[in-house]
Amino acid sequence: MIKVTVLGAGNVASHLAKALADANQVELVQNFNRKGIQLLPQLPTTSQYSELLEADVFLVAVGDNAITEVAQQLKQVKGVVAHTSGAISINVLQAVERPGVFYPLQTFTKGMPVALDTVPICLEANAAQDLEILQKLGKTLSSSVHHINSLQRRQLHLAAVFCSNFTNHLMYLTQQICEDKGVAYELLLPLIKETMHKLEVMGPFTAQTGPARRNDTDTMQAHLQQLNGRDLQEIYKAMSHSILHTYGNEL
Amino acid sequence: MIKVTVLGAGNVASHLAKALADANQVELVQNFNRKGIQLLPQLPTTSQYSELLEADVFLVAVGDNAITEVAQQLKQVKGVVAHTSGAISINVLQAVERPGVFYPLQTFTKGMPVALDTVPICLEANAAQDLEILQKLGKTLSSSVHHINSLQRRQLHLAAVFCSNFTNHLMYLTQQICEDKGVAYELLLPLIKETMHKLEVMGPFTAQTGPARRNDTDTMQAHLQQLNGRDLQEIYKAMSHSILHTYGNEL
Repeated sequence: MIKVTVLGAGNVASHLAKALADANQVELVQNFNRKGIQLLPQLPTTSQYSELLEADVFLVAVGDNAITEVAQQLKQVKGVVAHTSGAISINVLQAVERPGVFYPLQTFTKGMPVALDTVPICLEANAAQDLEILQKLGKTLSSSVHHINSLQRRQLHLAAVFCSNFTNHLMYLTQQICEDKGVAYELLLPLIKETMHKLEVMGPFTAQTGPARRNDTDTMQAHLQQLNGRDLQEIYKAMSHSILHTYGNEL
Repeated sequence: MIKVTVLGAGNVASHLAKALADANQVELVQNFNRKGIQLLPQLPTTSQYSELLEADVFLVAVGDNAITEVAQQLKQVKGVVAHTSGAISINVLQAVERPGVFYPLQTFTKGMPVALDTVPICLEANAAQDLEILQKLGKTLSSSVHHINSLQRRQLHLAAVFCSNFTNHLMYLTQQICEDKGVAYELLLPLIKETMHKLEVMGPFTAQTGPARRNDTDTMQAHLQQLNGRDLQEIYKAMSHSILHTYGNEL
């Protein structure tokens, strides 16, 4: 049994607590959060650092800005203290004795269940035995557990902004462009599906199509005039420039 | 039986010819292309306009810039002359007697088979009876056949650039960002999959996450410094500004 305490009450904390409560070989000891919010029905909850019980791993699943402050309060604990952030170095945990990172590379949303079993869990620790505990813990949740250093994790986190956050926003803009002229967005769903399929089969470099790919300046100029608003135009320009440069063309 | 001739030898022409050859209730009469390329083994092919036989529908599946020129050569034909472009108005076909549009809203790549049966086919014609013939033809290929005017089709085409071409390029950039620090791009595949799933379940407005969504200026500044090259930075800025403005924030 690995004894685990989760700190925080946000999306990552909630999803991790739920998954750990269901995991074999894990005893979820406590949840700590400042407001004393009850994350799970049976889970002992505290808002006082002085009431923290001993555990093998303390998962600090709080906002990036709060990690250092929470770590200051965990100087005395004997277990591994691992934060769960993609962007933050392990070094912010220097106040604690056994720092680590336990970063699940996934997008979590309140109330939306996520199967963690294929989610990559990116681990880091300063001591080999601490890494080993985190690996054991990771494997109770997922078959995809990886030792990734802070520099690489930060890069993954940045890449995730492009492939997840920005992709999602492109779909929002697509909806807006459709609504602007009363066209049903749903007409584009087969195209989106095929785009994702081609990505898998051919890879994105070969799969690229569109006006910027064929250096079709007439169509690009027409699109820029057609677009409603500066933000859309700036995105269109920046994306098209990047595609043109990728394939050796210049506007 | 609807008699159809396909003009052109590019991606759209090839995919349409193949699908029409397999369709019930369609007789594929000829393919025309300037170089006399044989698109399909059994298909009569010509490079001379004077050799064109009569047909119910002539599908002009050539590059956007060549449509007007081809239409000039089809003044004498009795069938409906429909181009297959998303961006071009029906008005460029004014030289012909019975102009129309037959636009399959999909991304076509040479050598990559596409099932057309759920692909939206966007139709337009000036005369009701011509629209009817195009609808009959469309239904031999797909269950998703729509009457869409030139303005709306142009808008769909623009939206398709955002959700297909730009999304694909974001995935290319994601790969580059990973390679830059020797991280395996494959670690992001579960995230991409979940992003697409959330889109379907919640819609993009609600599904949005990331530093720009929570107005996390520290992370955005750090990401901009971390990005290698001006194109990536410009895309990051343009996308982040648009997300900030969508949710009522200002940098």
